[in-house]
This record gives sequence, structure tokens and C-alpha cells, in this order.
Amino acid sequence: MFTLHPQLEVDTLLVGDLPICRVLLSGQFSQYPWLILVPRRTGCRDLTDLPEQDYLPVMEEVRYVHDKLREVTKADKMNIAALGNAVPQLHIHIIARFQGDEAWPGPVWGKGEVTPYPDKGLKMLKKLREVLDLQAYDA
Amino acid sequence: MFTLHPQLEVDTLLVGDLPICRVLLSGQFSQYPWLILVPRRTGCRDLTDLPEQDYLPVMEEVRYVHDKLREVTKADKMNIAALGNAVPQLHIHIIARFQGDEAWPGPVWGKGEVTPYPDKGLKMLKKLREVLDLQAYDA
Repeated sequence: MFTLHPQLEVDTLLVGDLPICRVLLSGQFSQYPWLILVPRRTGCRDLTDLPEQDYLPVMEEVRYVHDKLREVTKADKMNIAALGNAVPQLHIHIIARFQGDEAWPGPVWGKGEVTPYPDKGLKMLKKLREVLDLQAYDA
Repeated sequence: MFTLHPQLEVDTLLVGDLPICRVLLSGQFSQYPWLILVPRRTGCRDLTDLPEQDYLPVMEEVRYVHDKLREVTKADKMNIAALGNAVPQLHIHIIARFQGDEAWPGPVWGKGEVTPYPDKGLKMLKKLREVLDLQAYDA
């Protein structure tokens, strides 16, 4: 049975579920709106550890969330990554970047002040749930 | 017409071409074998800027190269990313990581000494061309 890794549990806010992936919002770095997709599958660490038949549907979910996050944030650039060296549960970062943001043009990991959303992310979560419309998702 | 961004040209060695992606080897950081896939399409910066019909085939090529690189390097962990904040041509990093490597457990960007392959990458390129068998690729 799928359970979220405790580190991801602590660092994120729940947006909702797509057919395969849980969609989480990083609560720590509001300067770059940062979503994390976690396929609700067990025993996956690398991206291709996914069951064969789940790989392309997960990549469709990545595309969907990527484009909606870009739309809602009007980002200058999107960053996507599956790293997971420290947290051994497959998770995919989708991050909205802005020219001149705190880590620009470098990657965000290990950079930038912890800057939680002032309202515990409520406004951002509401906006994301509206734009993502997770229940209506159709690959 | 597709032309490789000059920065990618300078930093990498040519492995060969898949149906959509050019496969490059980073020549700078032999401590973590690092491939870069560049879809031979024009005007793409974000991953989803790809023509609609190319997105999933590119993700199949990513899976193929990822698994072959993992196999040939016996990596402890694979890292995948599309960042491209500095180089405005879509390129996808596929990196073999090892526990205790120079950047472990952090991401590799901006870390680690420049450590070119001692033989200009000839041995690694040969091994990669064998294991990838690009001409025989069939999604």
C-alpha cells in the first residue's frame, strides 16, 4: 500500500490526486512555486522503476501539471527533475522559475531562504486546485 | 533546421542520434557519467514546448537511455532533469550517481571539479555506443 515518505509529508502541502500521482506543493519556498508529483506506487525510486504501463501515463500527468503551473504562474522557465538521492521515494519536481529569482539561473536545490507562504499556502492551493481541476483530468 | 546550441557543442561529446534526440556525453565531469538528450526540434525550451506528437516518443527515448546508462554504469541512483535556465535549447540531463560521489547527495550542477575523461572520452563513448545500439533503437 502506498504511503508518502515522511520527509515529503513534512515539506509539502497536499493539492490533490491525479489518477496515478499525488500532487504536492512545496511549503518551504514560495519564491518559486514548486510542485512535486509522487506516483502512488510502491518500491519506485528511479523514474523508470515505475511499472512499465505507468511510465507514459505518469509523463502525461507531468505534462498536464507542468503546463497548468506555467499558466497560473506565468513563469519565465519551467524546471523538471527526478533526483531523489536523499529521499528514496520516486518524486518529480515541477518548478516555476523567474528571471532574477533567488537561485536564478542555477537550480533551486540548496539555494534560497526558506520562505513559507504567508497564509499556509491557502491562496496558492485554492488557485492550483482551480486551474488543475484534478477530478476532470483526462489524459 | 536544427542546430545544437554552441554551449552544448562546447561542453559535450557526440554519442549519436536516436529518432528524435541527439545523445551527448558531458565531457567535463567524468566522476558522474552524464548524458544529455537534445530533441532535434527547433524553438523548444521547456519540455512541453515539443510538438504534441513528439512528447511521449521523447520520453520513451529518455527511458531507453536512462536504463542503458544505469546498466552500463551500475549507478546507485539516476538523476533526470530538464532545467535550461542558462542554455535556452531544450536538453534533458540523465546522470549516473554514486553514493559518495563528489556532489552526493546533492544535485550535480555547480558542484564538483571539472574532470575530463583522460582519453577524451573515447573508451566511454565506445561503451555507450555499444550498449545504446542507437541504430537498432525501436520504441
